[in-house]
Amino acid sequence: MIVLFSDFGLHGPYIGQVKAVLYQQAPGQPVIDLFSDAPVFDIRCSAYLLAAYADSFPAGTVFCAVVDPGVGSDARQPIFLHARGQWFVGPDNGLFSRVAAADPQARYWRIDWRPEVCSDTFHGRDLFAPVAARLACGEQVPATLQSQGLDNDWPLDYPAVIYIDHFGNAMTGIQATSLRDDSVLLLPETDGIARRLNYARTYQDVSVGQAFWYRNANGLVEIAVNQGHAGRLCELKPGTALVIQSVV
Amino acid sequence: MIVLFSDFGLHGPYIGQVKAVLYQQAPGQPVIDLFSDAPVFDIRCSAYLLAAYADSFPAGTVFCAVVDPGVGSDARQPIFLHARGQWFVGPDNGLFSRVAAADPQARYWRIDWRPEVCSDTFHGRDLFAPVAARLACGEQVPATLQSQGLDNDWPLDYPAVIYIDHFGNAMTGIQATSLRDDSVLLLPETDGIARRLNYARTYQDVSVGQAFWYRNANGLVEIAVNQGHAGRLCELKPGTALVIQSVV
Amino acid sequence: MIVLFSDFGLHGPYIGQVKAVLYQQAPGQPVIDLFSDAPVFDIRCSAYLLAAYADSFPAGTVFCAVVDPGVGSDARQPIFLHARGQWFVGPDNGLFSRVAAADPQARYWRIDWRPEVCSDTFHGRDLFAPVAARLACGEQVPATLQSQGLDNDWPLDYPAVIYIDHFGNAMTGIQATSLRDDSVLLLPETDGIARRLNYARTYQDVSVGQAFWYRNANGLVEIAVNQGHAGRLCELKPGTALVIQSVV
Repeated sequence: MIVLFSDFGLHGPYIGQVKAVLYQQAPGQPVIDLFSDAPVFDIRCSAYLLAAYADSFPAGTVFCAVVDPGVGSDARQPIFLHARGQWFVGPDNGLFSRVAAADPQARYWRIDWRPEVCSDTFHGRDLFAPVAARLACGEQVPATLQSQGLDNDWPLDYPAVIYIDHFGNAMTGIQATSLRDDSVLLLPETDGIARRLNYARTYQDVSVGQAFWYRNANGLVEIAVNQGHAGRLCELKPGTALVIQSVV
Repeated sequence: MIVLFSDFGLHGPYIGQVKAVLYQQAPGQPVIDLFSDAPVFDIRCSAYLLAAYADSFPAGTVFCAVVDPGVGSDARQPIFLHARGQWFVGPDNGLFSRVAAADPQARYWRIDWRPEVCSDTFHGRDLFAPVAARLACGEQVPATLQSQGLDNDWPLDYPAVIYIDHFGNAMTGIQATSLRDDSVLLLPETDGIARRLNYARTYQDVSVGQAFWYRNANGLVEIAVNQGHAGRLCELKPGTALVIQSVV
Repeated sequence: MIVLFSDFGLHGPYIGQVKAVLYQQAPGQPVIDLFSDAPVFDIRCSAYLLAAYADSFPAGTVFCAVVDPGVGSDARQPIFLHARGQWFVGPDNGLFSRVAAADPQARYWRIDWRPEVCSDTFHGRDLFAPVAARLACGEQVPATLQSQGLDNDWPLDYPAVIYIDHFGNAMTGIQATSLRDDSVLLLPETDGIARRLNYARTYQDVSVGQAFWYRNANGLVEIAVNQGHAGRLCELKPGTALVIQSVV
């Protein structure tokens, strides 16, 4: 299975062009759109999202993951990573740092292969998709194993909003296991109000219109409003900082 | 064929996660996104949409249909329904009532199977998708046939907007066969104007900018504007009530 | 491979319904969404987009391409075209004129086949998809070869914005090869400012927030802003006219 993770947008031709490469070069492999709307150019939010959502896919899954504001720069190298039995293909800009941190045995390779024709701005299609196709087919890719692990300066928990979903729920970079049921989440002050959110197990446990935090279905702390849009109500967006308050 | 119908949104990871389950558990089955943006939490609009749009799929199709504001509540039961030769897997909250009403032989089962791990808030992925996969593969699912049919208090025609599409067209819950060509559709007053819409066969039959109603390609009455956006022009949204006036 | 190009929108049931037809009538054929959000009803922008983006697909690809404000009118005929080794199925309204112009050997057929049931407003599903499925399977379609080529009044370069993507980049109808590196692109005056855009190879070559033009990964001139949204910053939308100034 090949899984796509990017900030390319659902609209326009980009995801379709990547899939056209995959269907031709890895025929018969299912291709899944996981995120096509990761926060644009936001590597840190994307790194936490990818780590949380990759977790539920089986071993052997190949992720073609591209959030790549530095595309076309010589400083940025194409790599692939093997961690928790899964493959991750993309840029070496930090996007894979949280995935790598989850597996002490993680190894990564600099990709030496180059396509005959490579655009300056669409390595997702021209370079990363062909490499993902080969890995999915169990084929060799010319690459150099790196002796050191990926840099990883970011902590386990990122106390910030990392994604607003279709319902307006705000996923955070905080592990669900890092908070106790009596932990309180403090939001930044808006209009003179500093909201304090308590835990609830699910929507049904709070009244309509009330904001709360819960443990989402992928192991992240998530902010929601029963039958409301947390993002708009609480003025949250990717990058909004949160404070965790644990009651003693 | 497995068909997805939900209010999960096209954005974000939810549809991808459901598909990952289906591709693993029902390999080789085509999976179609029918609606991923059914009106959020609006069971009634969704029930009419699903009934109208399921109709064009072949017998044997399995619908995994989830509009489920009560997810995680004990009161809400997971079910599957067999109607018009098709299978429908989802919550027992009324979403399938219009589909069931279309077939006097419709039968439904309470799903007794539970996954080893089930989140509180994403039964679409954890419970309904695996059941849909099994039904699509012709496998047994532990379930209890219910002796009575599904409750069905809603009438054949729901005189309201149930969906606004990409062009701004407003699908209604009114069967195309329920109106005569000389029927008039009254919209709620906006800015002191109460619009009266007449029938036209297609866009070409009215002048540019004119609002009208027509029989859409799935048997529903639909409100449109030639080369315009009916939803914005007429201030329509899912739930907007309509009045049918039949000229004598 | 069957490729979808339309203005149907990603939202709602239309693309899913087209795919349901294709999966049933051309089982095993990969189906790719290229554009589902071509500029609504804008045949000219769509014709240039289609020609630029079809180019990267292999010979034998079948495009089911529908931007069809005249659907349901008797004046508009359904056709298919063979150009550059690819097939294009859709309306004869000019959508294929740029694709046809790229191949002096292009030939086209009027489709004589009609489905048993055909809606007035959704020929994409009822007529074009079944024809695309047959062509993809190498089957005959009742059709009449036309003795003349498709009309083609539009020039090679269309100096206008033809699409705004998810990042806010503005694709233009100008071939990348038509401009020199010292060519300047003049935008229409907004708020008293008439912007003059210079060429850069990629985002990294200009400062953050600066607008420029570059050659995109599909051979079109594209307007972008480093880490910004060119569409909003420069008030561009499909149809916005541009002036090419070549420095002497």
